[in-house]
This record gives sequence, structure tokens and C-alpha cells, in this order.
Amino acid sequence: MVSPWKTASVPGLQLGLGCGFWICRSYRLLFRAGAMGPHVVPRQLVWLSRWQAVCAWGASVQHRTWAGVSRMPSLLSSGGALGASPLVRRSSSSTPPDAPEVVLTQQRYPVTRLPFSVVSAEDLAAFERILPGGVVTDPEVLEASNVDWLRTVRGCSKVLLRPRTSQEVARILRYCHERNLAVNPQGGNTGMVGGSVPVFDEIILSTTLMNQVISFNSVSGTLVCQAGCVLEELSRYVEERGFVMPLDLGAKGSCHIGGNVATNAGGLRFLRYGSLHGTVLGLEVVLADGTVLDCLTSLRKDNTGYDLKQLFIGSEGTLGVITAVSIQCPPKPRAVNVAFLGCPGFAEVLQTFSSGKELLGEILSAYEFMDAECMWLVTHHLRLASPVQESPFYVLVETSGSRAGHDSEKLSDFLERALSSGLVTDGTVATDQTRLKALWALRERISEALSRDGYVYKYDLSLPTERLYDLVSDLRARLGSQAKHVVGYGHLGDGNLHLNVTSEVFSPSLLADLEPYVYEWTARQRGSVSAEHGLGFKKRGVLSYSKPPEALRLMQQLKALLDPKGILNPYKTLPAQA
Amino acid sequence: MVSPWKTASVPGLQLGLGCGFWICRSYRLLFRAGAMGPHVVPRQLVWLSRWQAVCAWGASVQHRTWAGVSRMPSLLSSGGALGASPLVRRSSSSTPPDAPEVVLTQQRYPVTRLPFSVVSAEDLAAFERILPGGVVTDPEVLEASNVDWLRTVRGCSKVLLRPRTSQEVARILRYCHERNLAVNPQGGNTGMVGGSVPVFDEIILSTTLMNQVISFNSVSGTLVCQAGCVLEELSRYVEERGFVMPLDLGAKGSCHIGGNVATNAGGLRFLRYGSLHGTVLGLEVVLADGTVLDCLTSLRKDNTGYDLKQLFIGSEGTLGVITAVSIQCPPKPRAVNVAFLGCPGFAEVLQTFSSGKELLGEILSAYEFMDAECMWLVTHHLRLASPVQESPFYVLVETSGSRAGHDSEKLSDFLERALSSGLVTDGTVATDQTRLKALWALRERISEALSRDGYVYKYDLSLPTERLYDLVSDLRARLGSQAKHVVGYGHLGDGNLHLNVTSEVFSPSLLADLEPYVYEWTARQRGSVSAEHGLGFKKRGVLSYSKPPEALRLMQQLKALLDPKGILNPYKTLPAQA
Repeated sequence: MVSPWKTASVPGLQLGLGCGFWICRSYRLLFRAGAMGPHVVPRQLVWLSRWQAVCAWGASVQHRTWAGVSRMPSLLSSGGALGASPLVRRSSSSTPPDAPEVVLTQQRYPVTRLPFSVVSAEDLAAFERILPGGVVTDPEVLEASNVDWLRTVRGCSKVLLRPRTSQEVARILRYCHERNLAVNPQGGNTGMVGGSVPVFDEIILSTTLMNQVISFNSVSGTLVCQAGCVLEELSRYVEERGFVMPLDLGAKGSCHIGGNVATNAGGLRFLRYGSLHGTVLGLEVVLADGTVLDCLTSLRKDNTGYDLKQLFIGSEGTLGVITAVSIQCPPKPRAVNVAFLGCPGFAEVLQTFSSGKELLGEILSAYEFMDAECMWLVTHHLRLASPVQESPFYVLVETSGSRAGHDSEKLSDFLERALSSGLVTDGTVATDQTRLKALWALRERISEALSRDGYVYKYDLSLPTERLYDLVSDLRARLGSQAKHVVGYGHLGDGNLHLNVTSEVFSPSLLADLEPYVYEWTARQRGSVSAEHGLGFKKRGVLSYSKPPEALRLMQQLKALLDPKGILNPYKTLPAQA
Repeated sequence: MVSPWKTASVPGLQLGLGCGFWICRSYRLLFRAGAMGPHVVPRQLVWLSRWQAVCAWGASVQHRTWAGVSRMPSLLSSGGALGASPLVRRSSSSTPPDAPEVVLTQQRYPVTRLPFSVVSAEDLAAFERILPGGVVTDPEVLEASNVDWLRTVRGCSKVLLRPRTSQEVARILRYCHERNLAVNPQGGNTGMVGGSVPVFDEIILSTTLMNQVISFNSVSGTLVCQAGCVLEELSRYVEERGFVMPLDLGAKGSCHIGGNVATNAGGLRFLRYGSLHGTVLGLEVVLADGTVLDCLTSLRKDNTGYDLKQLFIGSEGTLGVITAVSIQCPPKPRAVNVAFLGCPGFAEVLQTFSSGKELLGEILSAYEFMDAECMWLVTHHLRLASPVQESPFYVLVETSGSRAGHDSEKLSDFLERALSSGLVTDGTVATDQTRLKALWALRERISEALSRDGYVYKYDLSLPTERLYDLVSDLRARLGSQAKHVVGYGHLGDGNLHLNVTSEVFSPSLLADLEPYVYEWTARQRGSVSAEHGLGFKKRGVLSYSKPPEALRLMQQLKALLDPKGILNPYKTLPAQA
């Protein structure tokens, strides 16, 4: 059993010698030269090299960044109320030629158009005066903005407006408010719940051309920019200056910072840098009537009156249109490590998290988990290779710190304890960009693998961490052979479970077994039925599972106060009123 | 010159060998055995021991915690609009016997009572039915709740209510709403701007008896508790369980967590753990009409509808009464170090901060500064000894981390660079509790020293960090010999300047030279005229210097929506309406 391993003595702790590997506390290093297989050396604190596995992924690794539908042909999906499947395809230029039309939202869902005005030729002329050259009516171009990237909802807007300044946004909204025209604010159109496309013929107000950095303070790390800046471009901009954006998403190649703020995006850095409610310093917002609300300060502290910007963070464009953002960027970490580990049970996943918080402390930047069925899906459908032996659960632990040597020591101690105590049965570590991404891909491409498995019923839940996986086990027993797969994965460090169920084709009886069961289960735990995706159009009906009637009433009052005619992103966020 | 120093070789970097000291990069250690004086060894990276200085402070060190007026007899003060002086004293039982009455707010300030009802005997009977034994009308007891701890404002409330549950708060507010009775919510009464005491005869609704911890999750660190829990007691509670509160204040011995949230308290851990807008997970709030708004979740992520709790964070009790708080507690740092350094100029203060961010990275937890006049005040009025040689500026750098050895190395590298590059000319380091507190006292007792210097004109401003001290220099030139002292200190890491001016006695002409000059200067920098103290009663008139008319209008609309009769903490936060 020892023959496939090469042993070497090294003078001290090291990480990232070309490939992911494990280092033992006694500085004995074992490189694995052969193929993968069971190879745990019990009772020995041995960090096992897995360089072949990690390096072999190179070809199949999908970059964490994606840039909209055109770069994601594999992510075709349908829609039942909350589902996504690869059965529906699109016909626009960025879609494979065999993709069928997405059914119009108004035909698929029980929703009635509200009595807004219809865009007239006079309106188009007025928009053209406000935005010379910025008024799009070409149906081919409009198609991509009428359909969400998951291809589950489709509006029939006849006009797309592309302002460059907040003053132009203000003039547009003032006009629309007077004319009672409904408006659908749109950023990168990367939302998961149908919030970013029109339901009927709402005017699409795109932030695409509002893509200028306004200022960056290289001492404080405060970035001020227009709402249409693409997150990845902002990341690059601030990283060149020694900082990072406080949020990172799979959609960063397409999503706009304004949309991130409007949806209170969570993502991959939430565990470390927290919520946008804490990192956004200021906003400029245009209200429904065209009033420009300038709260675009760059101050970390400001207790003069109510913190109005908070109202708009996570309001999904229903209370105002965010036109500029001031955000606090943390210093760029000098060292990043990722460990991918196998755990024998969910209890061990939780204990490993506690141990990580204790031993990694301030450098712990992500703690993600996935179950064995997730691993089966990514290895089976996407042909990714598992870097560790088969386990009931896997966790991805990321550290980000300012000093590589210190971080390596902390990580090594953490891994040693996890392995020696039996919390972790196997694992691998990566430090360079290529392998970091390869390990991240295992976690991030689960959604893609699911879409290849059949019809997908998707849930994005916040639950008390210790109960987080019970729902998955519960459902597996409840659904039995009705479901192909019942899988759980997500941002465990944030208490955020992505629960997904697949079946060959859409099954109303399966859906009936899932809903409202999942929502009621979540509500009993005082969880959230939408942890980070928001409610948009598709989930607005389930708000009451996570919020009491008094809260819903106050939300409706706020909506009525800020947008009395209801023209901003109608049919979104709040349930339809009786 | 070398004789007073003892030299020792040590095997590695160390900090905290009994007393504060400096360690050289080459591990040469010099203990200073003699008295203090100029002792920089140019071009040598020598960390100089200052143990006598640090240890000698023991007797005069004031614990960072204070527990209300009764423990702060030296903090007597008056008020002009924003001033504080030791000239006015109080007569209540907790006040020195020679302290004169504080003038009634309605006599000192131009403010008119709004047409609320007056508390009747029937009202008192109704309150007694809601709160058997919880209705206080004894004038002696009421006195402490009618006067702010700075002794600058004084109401004439005739009744203090002490509910124990949110249901009792709801019944009280429902009753007051129906009867049009004004209510002043009160926590620990530690506010700086007169927000926590009645202006006229508002009913005082105290959270003092709402002091129960509801739950604590020792895996996630989520604390749920009633609003009246004292911050220091919560700190102790969570520290025993391996966590810390994400905020720390000088007032922690008295202030209530509900009041902290209602005023969006900043304090000493802001740089590390950020704003309460990010760390508060949920709130229970009773609205003006008695509706209980239960948003008391413990979820890190929840994007179901608008994040209503944000409305109440920093609203100073004018939109609702916070009755319970759910808050995310970070793990307790295992190592804390404090360095107290002398800098030759403000440019060097800023560069030292940049260097600290770079080399201390994720363990930097505080970066405070004070100028030479501040040091003169604390050494002259409080007889504290400066631990370093005389410098134009001083900074206090705190690190908090999970691994003492790593933290020491980072700190040592930072100090080495700061000293060798001339950014810092002298300094001392402490690692144990007594000396940490002694160093912190130099910074924290400035306010007390100011109050002994004469009449104090106080400003709490957020400014772009690079311009932060310009206002102090400007004012010093502008005021000339009119002022005794013009001093600047504060949370530099957060861009928060505490600007204070003293004169022998209150001078209207000096005030006229200060205001609106200070506010206009701040507004030109897009700063905040209240960084962390809020507006309360005393600063509500200056809101417009930091917020545009559109924001003010929306704030007034929100107030009208949530509290249509205006019964909640009237005369506070928003300017009086014409």
C-alpha cells in the first residue's frame, strides 16, 4: 500500500509546491505518483499529494467567471414556478440555433397586467429626445433583454433605454411617472428569480452604458462608480490598486454593481467581508418620480438621520433605480489557499467548520459544502475528477490573508487537527490560481451538472447551520424514487443551503410533495426561503413564509410611499395584492 | 547615552514580557531602566522598553468602562447648543451635593411643545394595569432619567415606565398612540446629543428591565437578547463562550444594546467588525401604534423582501422602539497588542496607517490618533504620563488576532518599517490587560481632560481621511487667542475626527466663529456633521449640512408613515418642521 507514494523530508511547512498536496506535522511529505484510490494512512498525520487529480482537471475547468447567456450554452433551463431544466432553448443570436422559444411569462404564469399606459410613438420620440441614439426598438436586440439567462421567464417589452447619466435616468423616470409607464430596471440580467426582465411590456431601463468609475481612493480603498460597471471589471480595477471588491459572484463577468446592490448579492466573499448592508457606503438613487436622491458619500461613518441607502439595498429595483455606488474595498489578500476535504458525516462538516473558525481565525474566507450526490453529478455529467476519495460530504475551505507563511502554518494546523481527529478523512490543498479554480469548479459547477440531470426544482434557503442538512435527508425519505436526485450544497459558513431536486421531466406530483413542504419546513426553523437570490418575480408569492404579516404590510406601505403609481419593476418582490 | 539600557539576546520575536517594550528585528532587546526622556537611537532598529512609564500609570488609569453619571463625577458639563463644560452640576442623589440644577431644555432652547396629551391620573392607572409595579412617578427617581449624563439637557417627565416584555411595550404604545401621548424611549441614557431624555413631559419608556439573553448559538456566535441588556454584560457573556461583541464603547458599562442599535453606535471595534448595519441580524421592534414587528431572525442571509430592520438602526427611537436584537458575534481574538507611537506630522500619521493596513492586514483592529495638544491636556489635567517622547501627533494601533506568535511578527515588522522610515519617531507596545488599558486611557480620557479645561465646543465629524486634520489647523489659525485649545483626535481608521475647542467660559463670539464655519467646511468635503453620535435633540438642526433636501424630505415621509402622530421621541433627529 505504501509503494505508490514518494516520501521526502522538507525543512519546514510548505504549501503549494507546484501542485496541491498535504503536509504532515512532522514535515514528512508524501507525493502520490499513481492513480487515485483509497489511500488514507490511518493514525498518521500525512498530507497526501494529489497533484495528478488537480492538474488533470485543467482541460475541463470552467472559469469561475461567466459572461451571460452567450457564454453559458450548457445552462439552458426551463421553468416551472421555481424550476430550471435544459428542455427549453432560445432562438436569439446568442442562443444555440435549436433552442426553442421561451414561453411568455404572461402565458405560463397566472399574472394580470396592471393598468399602466402602453408605449406610444410619442413616447418613443420623447425618449429619443432625452437619449439621442440610446433608444432600442429592434426586436432581435430586445430579445436578449426580455428573457432571463435561465430561460424561464420572458417579457414582451418593445423598448430598451440605455442612459449614460443619472440625469438621463431622472428625466426618463419623470416622464414615465407622468405618463404612468412601467419600467423594468436591468443590470447584467443575471438574476435567478426572474427579477431582471419585464413580465409584460415594461420599458427596459438598462444600466449597460453607465459604466464609469467616478473615483477611487487608494488610501481608504473607497470606490465610487456608476451602477452599470461590471463586477469583474471593477475587481480588476481595484486589484491593480491593491484592493479587492468585497463581493465575488459566479456571475461577475456579466453582473452590474448596481444590480448586485439592488439584489443584495451574497456570493463567495460574504463569510469574510459580510453583507453589502455593511460594505456599501453610499448610493445615488433615482426615485420613481425622477427625484435624484444623492446619498453617494464615501464616509465609513455617518449618523445624520436615517440611513436611506439601506432601503434600496435588496429592494430589487422596486423602490428606486440605483445609478451610482460607493463601496468599501478591503485590501487585497497576499495569500490565498483552498483545501478540498472529505468528511464522513454532516456532524463532522459542522465540527470541521468550528475547528476552522478556531484555528484559521481571521483568515478563513470561505467554507462551502456539498454532498456525495453533488460529487456524483459533477463527475458524471461534467467529467470532473474528484480530487479526494469518495465521502458522504465534501467541504471547500478557503483562506485569504496578508502573509503566506503565517497562513500556511494556520492551515496546516487546522488540517492536522481535522485529519487526526477523524473529522476529515481525506483532502487536498491548492495555492496557485489554476488549481484554486479547479477546486472551486467542483463546487461552482454543481448547478450546471444539475441542469444536465433533468428537470430541476431549486431552493435557496437560509437555515440554522446545525439543522441545515436535515431538510435534505427529510426530503430524500419523503420523495423516495419520485426524485432522481435530492442534493444539498452551499455556503455553509453563511448558513445558506442550495437544495435541488431533479426528475427526468417536470412532475406536478413531485412539485406538490415539495411545495409548500420545503417552505413550511424552513418557516418552522425561522429560516429564509430566499437567502441570497431574492424574490424577483418567481418567488414573490413565498415571502410570507419568512416574514410576518406586519412586515409585509410595512413593505407594501414603503412601496406605496416611494412609488405610489407602482411603475418601478412591477410584479416583483412583493406578492400581488388582492 | 547607552548606560540606562539593558541589552538581552532572545531566541526569537517576543512581545509582552511582563511590560510593554520594543523588540528589534535582530532580536536584540533593550530594557530601559531609567526615567523617561529623548532616547531614539537613530538608524538603529531598536524597540525601546518603556515599562516604567506604562506601569507607573496604574494608579491613574481609568477603566475603559464607565457606568453612567454616578461613576463619572468629573464629567460634569453644561450646554450651549453643542457644548459641554464643568460649570453646571446636578442635585440628584448620584450627583455631587454642590452640583446645581441643569436648566430645563424648554427654557434654554427655542423649542415649542407639540400638542400631545398630558399624562392624567387615568393614564397612570392604565399604565399600572399594564405594568403592575413598573410605573415610576417619584421625582427623585425620575430626575436621573430626565437629565442626560453630560448634564446639558433636562426634561420634566412625570412618569417612567419599566416594561419587561415586548408585549408590555406594545400595550403601552398602543395606549399612548390612542391617547396621543408622547414617548421617550430610553436605554442606558449615555447619548451625546440629548436624544435619550425627554425635551418636555414625554413619558420615559425605559428598557432597563428588558435585560434577558434569549439565546446564544455557540457554533455560529449569534446572540439574541432583549434590548435592555447592558453591553458590558453581554460582552462578558459571549466572551465566556469564546466570542466577542462586534462593538465596544467607552459607555459599555451603562449603555443598552437596544440603544446601541437605535443610535447605530460606532466605537472602538468599528474598524475591524464594521457597522451594525452589517452585524445586526435581526430586530424586534414595536411600532408607534403598538404593532410588534418581528424581524428577529438569526440568519446571516435573508433576501425575502425589504430589509426592514435597517430602517430602525440609527433612527434614534423615532421610528419604533427596539425591544430585542439578534447580533453576529465574531470569535474572541486570542492575542491583542497595542502600540502607542509618536509621529512627526499628520502626513506620517496617514502613511503609518497605510503601512499598518499593509503589514498588519487582517489583524489591525484599531487605528486612533491624537495631537500634541490632546497629550498636553491628559498629562496636565489628569496627570497621566506620556509613554513616548513629545511628538506633534500620536497614534494608537491595536491588533487582534487568533495566533499570538504570528501577530507579534506582523506587528514587529510594521514597527520596524515605521521607525526605520521615519514615519514614527518613538513608541511603546503593550500586550497585557493592565497596560493595554493604560495606553487606551491616553486616548479615551481626552474628553474628560477637555471638560477640565473650560467650556468645550464639541464636534464629531466624518471627513475624507487625507483632509481630516486640515480643519483643526484651519480653526487654530482662524480662532487665534480666542480659544484656549483647538484639538483633534479620533478614529482615524474610520475617518472620524473628534474636534474640540475650549475657552475659559462660554463665548458667543467664539461660537459664532465656529458655527456654521465647521459645518460648512465639513459639507464642502462631503463629510458628515455627526459621524457616530447621531443627531438627537442637540444636532437635529444641522442635518442639512450632510444630507440633501431630497433625503430630508424622504426621512420626513418615513417618519410620517411609521409614526403618523409623531409620538415617538419627538423633537429628535429630524429638524423641526416649519
